[in-house]
Amino acid sequence: MAIETYRPLPPLRLGLAGFGTVGGGLSRLLEENREELLARCGREISIRAILVRDPAKARPCPFPDGARICTKPDDFAGDEEVDVLVELLGGVELPGRLIRAALEAGRPVVTANKALLAEAGDDLFRLAAHKGLHLGYEAGVCGSIPIIQALREGLAANRHLTVSGILNGTSNYILSAMTNDGISFSQALKQAQELGFAEADPALDIQGLDAAHKLALIIRLAWGVRYPFVELPVEGIVGVTPEDIGFAREFGYSIKLLGYAALRELAAGESRLEAGVFPALVPDDYLLAKVDHAYNAVRIEGNAAGAIFLHGPGAGAMPTASAVASDLLRIAGGGRPNNTGYIRPEPSRIAILPPQEAVSSYYIRLVVPDRPGVLRVVAGAMADHQISVAQVIQKGQKDMVVPLVIMTHDTTVRAVRAALEQIRSCGILSADPVFYRVM
Amino acid sequence: MAIETYRPLPPLRLGLAGFGTVGGGLSRLLEENREELLARCGREISIRAILVRDPAKARPCPFPDGARICTKPDDFAGDEEVDVLVELLGGVELPGRLIRAALEAGRPVVTANKALLAEAGDDLFRLAAHKGLHLGYEAGVCGSIPIIQALREGLAANRHLTVSGILNGTSNYILSAMTNDGISFSQALKQAQELGFAEADPALDIQGLDAAHKLALIIRLAWGVRYPFVELPVEGIVGVTPEDIGFAREFGYSIKLLGYAALRELAAGESRLEAGVFPALVPDDYLLAKVDHAYNAVRIEGNAAGAIFLHGPGAGAMPTASAVASDLLRIAGGGRPNNTGYIRPEPSRIAILPPQEAVSSYYIRLVVPDRPGVLRVVAGAMADHQISVAQVIQKGQKDMVVPLVIMTHDTTVRAVRAALEQIRSCGILSADPVFYRVM
Repeated sequence: MAIETYRPLPPLRLGLAGFGTVGGGLSRLLEENREELLARCGREISIRAILVRDPAKARPCPFPDGARICTKPDDFAGDEEVDVLVELLGGVELPGRLIRAALEAGRPVVTANKALLAEAGDDLFRLAAHKGLHLGYEAGVCGSIPIIQALREGLAANRHLTVSGILNGTSNYILSAMTNDGISFSQALKQAQELGFAEADPALDIQGLDAAHKLALIIRLAWGVRYPFVELPVEGIVGVTPEDIGFAREFGYSIKLLGYAALRELAAGESRLEAGVFPALVPDDYLLAKVDHAYNAVRIEGNAAGAIFLHGPGAGAMPTASAVASDLLRIAGGGRPNNTGYIRPEPSRIAILPPQEAVSSYYIRLVVPDRPGVLRVVAGAMADHQISVAQVIQKGQKDMVVPLVIMTHDTTVRAVRAALEQIRSCGILSADPVFYRVM
Repeated sequence: MAIETYRPLPPLRLGLAGFGTVGGGLSRLLEENREELLARCGREISIRAILVRDPAKARPCPFPDGARICTKPDDFAGDEEVDVLVELLGGVELPGRLIRAALEAGRPVVTANKALLAEAGDDLFRLAAHKGLHLGYEAGVCGSIPIIQALREGLAANRHLTVSGILNGTSNYILSAMTNDGISFSQALKQAQELGFAEADPALDIQGLDAAHKLALIIRLAWGVRYPFVELPVEGIVGVTPEDIGFAREFGYSIKLLGYAALRELAAGESRLEAGVFPALVPDDYLLAKVDHAYNAVRIEGNAAGAIFLHGPGAGAMPTASAVASDLLRIAGGGRPNNTGYIRPEPSRIAILPPQEAVSSYYIRLVVPDRPGVLRVVAGAMADHQISVAQVIQKGQKDMVVPLVIMTHDTTVRAVRAALEQIRSCGILSADPVFYRVM
């Protein structure tokens, strides 16, 4: 067999901003999988410079050999020996500044910063398109699951009907622990923090904002449109109780925090985009209901592809590094940039369905006194707002305050809210009502 | 808002060889999703010429407007008005000839022909690399699941540890029907044929060859190596009985036809590739066990990404067309060809683990007389071959012939075969023994 020789290509030199969990993971991956990466793209990928606030800080992974450690963002941004900026800092202001400077200087960028791209990505995508540069963010959504690439390319020939996903591992860990172990939200959160599945400040995760950032990026990739981030309806899991999880189970559902988007075809052939992040009841025979622990998963339904389901680790040093490195391989291989999946760099306009008009079946839990007439008030309010009731559970305890759980047929958020307001005005509610969407 | 104008790019003109189910689906997709495709790549994608054996044959989908119908392969291959060959013929000889001619003439190719690429793809991949041309085959493996792309790019930064998949929808439909409805193999096959999930001649599917073709392509993408197709161990589902499915259930498993490949690290730091297609017992809490009907799914475990699971329709006109069109978008967009995922067009050599040495837990079913001493013979044979028994089920009926089911701890195929031969030689088997791998 002839031995083929290949002229080695010049190495791809990275400027790595941030050396926390993911930065350390990337350094380890580049070292451990050096041979695989070389066989894939024919180039060495090496970290040339690292920007950190405090070089002396203790880190789980040592700095790689040969990397210059830098503490001044301006020096770092202007480094001529760097071919690609890898931004893994967290935060929004400094990352935005560094990414802009890199693109302006003609350097491609890879980032895991979903917050920045979801809230202020338009400018950066425009700049990258103008410069003809890669702006990779596979690591920003669902860890090692190649969801960005699947939407941008693998499933790009579809008119997408729905995308629904478990986009936040922390929330899913907490809901899974509440479901499997019967513990409370605060116990589950504490457990997640102890095991490293939740940050010390878990607000972004449990309030649904992290999932919303990812959903905004997914919407842009699936439909080429922008759903203004500040208008996206977002509800977290803080209000979910073991009681609701138990009732959902009785009906054959699991409660999951979903990022959801759907194209609704209206009668006139017009369509509206409906989207939001919310806790929802997912039927137990759906694959999404089987997503446990800190895993992420996305279900994409296209008019040609049918329903595709992708599942994998949504976070962690090595899974996120795997996604960063896939973007680096693309850059190293000299592929054409295709950051948004559309030929036009600007997102199109699309009519948005007002969140109040979202049609679905809903789960409603009321806390009411167990006495004659209460059910009539509730049933009357449902009927007055054209809500058809599919199932009711009331476990009576005479003269006590009891939960009354209702599963509706298809109706709107508007109707549910109005019915609940009518019930409240009759003075029979002993606690705030709870309602969740049923998938 | 400024109205941006884009100079339209020239259309991408397809020469479509074959106009059966998938060809018709592609024609429909290009029509129905015309706007989406244009927004994605900025070019019209249109069918310019179609090669069929008999233009008069009744078809589920009419020929698209403006396409020239051609019956002579040589005229078709030389068509100067075609930019891309889309090969959806089936068979091996003519498709191979057409693909070679297209590549020689400098035309990229998209095909769904896994048999051709698995058995004789090396030459075609070499030619495509030499010419710098796309040879797309996303549609060849698992319908609309973007598995080729995931292995080639999204997960390419990993050292892959295992890939296991349900790669044949027909077999999975049959096994699911046997499991859910308790029917026999032949009843399930008949049902699958009536519902269009199995061909009139189902041999390729139920004997495991179709799954083996896909596995060979997956192995090349995951590790950049060639497992010689003729050496790949392949066992189909023809021998699977409702009885085995029932016993597997008692142990908490489902029987699935798997394509499986794993990198085995040996003590010395050497590794061996182990691969095969076989019916296996999959634990009921694995996502792979939940793959029902004609769906396909693949689980890829990488050293960085962790375990990624992809699930979707494995066949059908529109799902397969979705995969064909994703390759066409790539070509239309002017992306760099990356057909095999590796910089070298030739697959590397890898040491292959002899199939007899595959280490696993095994399920063994014997049919034996229910009389004293039989269990001693069986237990003795297991012990003589160092096989440690984890569980045994024997449902006695005095003086009758009964099944004796054994679940082993880790052992090799070689040891299982030797133990079974020893038992057979004692003359106590009333039927051929059955054994399946346990995942």
